[in-house]
Amino acid sequence: MALILGLDPSLSCTGWGVIRTEGSRIVHIANGQVPTDARAPMAARLASLQAALADVIAAHRPDRAAAEEVFVNKNPQSTLKLAQARGCVLAACGAAGLAVNEHAARLVKKAVVGTGGADKTQVQAMVKVLLPGVQIAGADAADALAVAIADAHLA
Amino acid sequence: MALILGLDPSLSCTGWGVIRTEGSRIVHIANGQVPTDARAPMAARLASLQAALADVIAAHRPDRAAAEEVFVNKNPQSTLKLAQARGCVLAACGAAGLAVNEHAARLVKKAVVGTGGADKTQVQAMVKVLLPGVQIAGADAADALAVAIADAHLA
Repeated sequence: MALILGLDPSLSCTGWGVIRTEGSRIVHIANGQVPTDARAPMAARLASLQAALADVIAAHRPDRAAAEEVFVNKNPQSTLKLAQARGCVLAACGAAGLAVNEHAARLVKKAVVGTGGADKTQVQAMVKVLLPGVQIAGADAADALAVAIADAHLA
Repeated sequence: MALILGLDPSLSCTGWGVIRTEGSRIVHIANGQVPTDARAPMAARLASLQAALADVIAAHRPDRAAAEEVFVNKNPQSTLKLAQARGCVLAACGAAGLAVNEHAARLVKKAVVGTGGADKTQVQAMVKVLLPGVQIAGADAADALAVAIADAHLA
């Protein structure tokens, strides 16, 4: 048994999802999204994102975390914003003593859907199949659950 | 009077420096560097960087902080590492309620040396002139003090 926290970091809205592995089974525990206020200063947005993630970690006490390897955007400003948010998410895990496994996006898709070329809609549909009855907070939470499911297979 | 925390974020070694403005005078208060262990996992490195910065902020209780705008490296992996570390540094400020002023690198050089085209050595030499008797922890701390000095002029 392992409790896995999947993460889909971004500045505007970070998705998270917790699953439990029981042998070869996986069970949904919780998922959610952390939006930040686009009108707030960057330092305050990052601090609020990190505090919310710390609360999630404290509430669920996962054994490990997982995130996709970063997609380096062609727009350097987008990459910068994503990476600053991602650093805060990783540090929240590190502060709680959690290791964060990083998986390439196509390996996540392959683990969840069966093919590395699957699109977002297919991934989200398959998350619902793999976690029957799950209520998903949104697209970012679905992506986070996909990373957690992939980690259960890959780690 | 204002107490200003200058920051030069990086994953391997973040520089910081605190100065006090007294009318048109500036006085050195403290400076230092926060190295991280390159052998440690990323999440742990970022958490330790952030904890060290939180200690600096708690010890000196600055009124505001300042950092250079990010230099977006041509190497996306370098940009990613820098931005993840920078996000943690900004979030440490945000968590303490500190606003972080961001200044373009050439404005920092212009404020400290008088010309936006100054090189690193000139900036560091001028920091010593402007803060007589200062003991500087290293090149990163010197850069952080330069940002603080620039912020005193620009903000």
